[in-house]
Amino acid sequence: MQRKTLYQTVYHRLRYQILSGDWPIGSKLPPERKLAEEWGVSRNTIVHAYADLETEELIYSRVGSGRYVQALPPPSALPRLHWKDSLPGGSALSAPSLMTELHALVGTRSALNFAFGEGGNHTRLKAQFAKGIDPLHILETSEADYLFPVQGLPELRSWIAEWMGCEQITEPSQVMITSGSQEALQMTTAILANPGDSIAVEMPTYFGALHLFQSLGLHLIPVPVDNEGMRIDVLEGILSRSRPRFIYTVPTFHNPTGTILSEARRQQLLALSEKHAIPIVEDDAYRHLHFNQEPPPPLKALDRQGNVIYINTFSKVLFPGLRLGWVAANRPFMERLTRYKELSISTNTFVQHALWSYLQKGAFQDHLQEARCHYQRQAAVMDEHLRQLIPKGISYMTPTGGFYYWVSLPEQVSPKELLQKAIEQNVVFATGDMFLPRETEQPFIRLCYSHETEAGIEQGMRILSSLL
Amino acid sequence: MQRKTLYQTVYHRLRYQILSGDWPIGSKLPPERKLAEEWGVSRNTIVHAYADLETEELIYSRVGSGRYVQALPPPSALPRLHWKDSLPGGSALSAPSLMTELHALVGTRSALNFAFGEGGNHTRLKAQFAKGIDPLHILETSEADYLFPVQGLPELRSWIAEWMGCEQITEPSQVMITSGSQEALQMTTAILANPGDSIAVEMPTYFGALHLFQSLGLHLIPVPVDNEGMRIDVLEGILSRSRPRFIYTVPTFHNPTGTILSEARRQQLLALSEKHAIPIVEDDAYRHLHFNQEPPPPLKALDRQGNVIYINTFSKVLFPGLRLGWVAANRPFMERLTRYKELSISTNTFVQHALWSYLQKGAFQDHLQEARCHYQRQAAVMDEHLRQLIPKGISYMTPTGGFYYWVSLPEQVSPKELLQKAIEQNVVFATGDMFLPRETEQPFIRLCYSHETEAGIEQGMRILSSLL
Repeated sequence: MQRKTLYQTVYHRLRYQILSGDWPIGSKLPPERKLAEEWGVSRNTIVHAYADLETEELIYSRVGSGRYVQALPPPSALPRLHWKDSLPGGSALSAPSLMTELHALVGTRSALNFAFGEGGNHTRLKAQFAKGIDPLHILETSEADYLFPVQGLPELRSWIAEWMGCEQITEPSQVMITSGSQEALQMTTAILANPGDSIAVEMPTYFGALHLFQSLGLHLIPVPVDNEGMRIDVLEGILSRSRPRFIYTVPTFHNPTGTILSEARRQQLLALSEKHAIPIVEDDAYRHLHFNQEPPPPLKALDRQGNVIYINTFSKVLFPGLRLGWVAANRPFMERLTRYKELSISTNTFVQHALWSYLQKGAFQDHLQEARCHYQRQAAVMDEHLRQLIPKGISYMTPTGGFYYWVSLPEQVSPKELLQKAIEQNVVFATGDMFLPRETEQPFIRLCYSHETEAGIEQGMRILSSLL
Repeated sequence: MQRKTLYQTVYHRLRYQILSGDWPIGSKLPPERKLAEEWGVSRNTIVHAYADLETEELIYSRVGSGRYVQALPPPSALPRLHWKDSLPGGSALSAPSLMTELHALVGTRSALNFAFGEGGNHTRLKAQFAKGIDPLHILETSEADYLFPVQGLPELRSWIAEWMGCEQITEPSQVMITSGSQEALQMTTAILANPGDSIAVEMPTYFGALHLFQSLGLHLIPVPVDNEGMRIDVLEGILSRSRPRFIYTVPTFHNPTGTILSEARRQQLLALSEKHAIPIVEDDAYRHLHFNQEPPPPLKALDRQGNVIYINTFSKVLFPGLRLGWVAANRPFMERLTRYKELSISTNTFVQHALWSYLQKGAFQDHLQEARCHYQRQAAVMDEHLRQLIPKGISYMTPTGGFYYWVSLPEQVSPKELLQKAIEQNVVFATGDMFLPRETEQPFIRLCYSHETEAGIEQGMRILSSLL
């Protein structure tokens, strides 16, 4: 593979610091000479990189004062153009979506898929689930209440409230069933923010959320993530300077980094949310797929003020194709969500009834236990291969749940080139820039171990190892 | 029942003329004396009514020139308020939705339901449909492609394109499967119009659409409907004065009036749309439920310029609980719709596969034929009862398809009072004002014959007859 020049390495490292929020918006950049010394490069390299970043409007100079991080302009939301014209190049909705691109890569489906965070092939689960479905019965019951209640099947909401068991969300009236967590996030965002509004978002973050926020024309304020999850100290600075409409977080088995927000930070985050009266949108899709140890309780469970809007899904613990997720939130928000949901009538009742009839059989807890062991084994297989790559300059944190390894490559390796080479050998993964608001070279890739069999992981990892 | 006073009758008649677009926005009202003569009431009654309408800001005076119809202000879209507060009274999303209200009325489900445009109890269809479903097979295939393509199952899109058979929409690539026609309409509207924009809408119109448009903060320009459907002459005036973002129409078995837009008007509507370069959103949910005679072709089939965005659904011909509809539109629009659809990922593939496996059995055409006969018989039962009420001052047009009778009551009868009395006797229907953008007394009710059995229709109609 072609190595990056020193300049490219420095430039992309700077760019990543800015886009991921490591250097927050408005903060002052280190003087050229100081940074050059720190990074062991020539002053000229830094001067050159700063100039390029200024041209890109990622930073700006104040005469006699220095250089500062600039806010990314919000992408234009739905473009106002003649309705028959094709989308113009500049708008958020015109970019070929990452999802579509990745899918094109998976293509024939014969590729080894480390790219998508989809559940594995639980053959036993499918048989169990299918056995519980009596189509005629489901048709009859689902037709009887296809429209109502808009919030979703009461039995299912009660079940969820009980399962969650958290003090704040035991009320089924505070739960809504949605078409997957993506719809939940879309409605929540549309209710809380208008185009041009700011929101605070972990960077890197789940690309489905990123794509959604950008398409809605929101201004993203990045909050960096370290080994303990979202950097609350940075968030504090952000909240005292600007008023984002909400804080979006995946605190447990964060996507893509796999980190867990520590208990101390959970309390700090809630305190900040209360102090500034800014709601938290907690995306908790991976919570139940922990390995040996249970993660800390959801923010929602610790939330005494009703500041958390909680989103979860059956996609990861059962099948993504069910398209069933849920929101738990305080009453006024649920009221608004219900009105919003009415606009598209209701979540598929046929599938809600199908899920309900499976859950009633009581096999879910056993399945969940099996799934945890299953993913833990798969993670272990991937880990073995990754460990052997440490001497070659990669690093990573071993996840304790969820679906992902977030792997830091040697800075000279281009993740995009690596992906190209991998595709040629039929392996697909996600590059780090897919989780940032702007395309940028950064030395990360995300490897998902949930989709392939152990043999598939072995095979794919051998290919990746040979490429590195 | 309490009779309306003469003043109330006059006032509500005026209000209806304005809200339904019979007197278009900007048009001059007849002078008081002239109208008083025409309607055979005192000049004072008209003066009084005009004054009240002016207070309500439905009309305004220009000194020395007369009175004019004023545009209704667009409702505020999602209100910007502290996210924990309850919805304020003034916003569109705060009104308890009609759907929810009506549903509360149906309540225990023991009520005779003439209110909802839902399909009947096709026992045979349910059995047939259920027989075609192999849950394990569907789970396996639907999980294989739960996300993609975003446009929906290719086999289903091909089937639809072939079924529709219209020249413009034979391309499966120009068809998208949606979560019912309501989602199709929601996405289409969000793409074409921003809050505060104007759209031209038949008045009265489908309340699901009305609620949607109002919730999105759109300014509605009413276009009246007569026996031949939308009044194209009025629309022409509207288009030359203002530029609505699109024209929303249910041209075939219009909801609620049951009228069919004549072929001549279809051509005129398309010509106007081309001339002004304003798209038409055609909602064609009832097309396939005609009685003996096929209705004129859809606008989409006559459209040579790609000006029509066509929306249809399986809810009326099969089950509403399937939540499967579709959009057919030109390529640039479909491209945008696909991007928008990605925001909530995709339509439930499990249910798409279930429908596809039913359709493959080939029983659909037979079912459709049966359903047509079934609804025609039910309409006939209702007709018999209605005919006997003509001497009591009611009037109506006999539908030739669809689900509804739009019944004009004697002007002195209050539909709301009638509904109250009916509810006491366990019969529910929709009052005319539910199909207008503002609550107003108007002498119409909509009776839906699709939901009840023939015996149920008999019983309900006997109760209504006794009340009138």
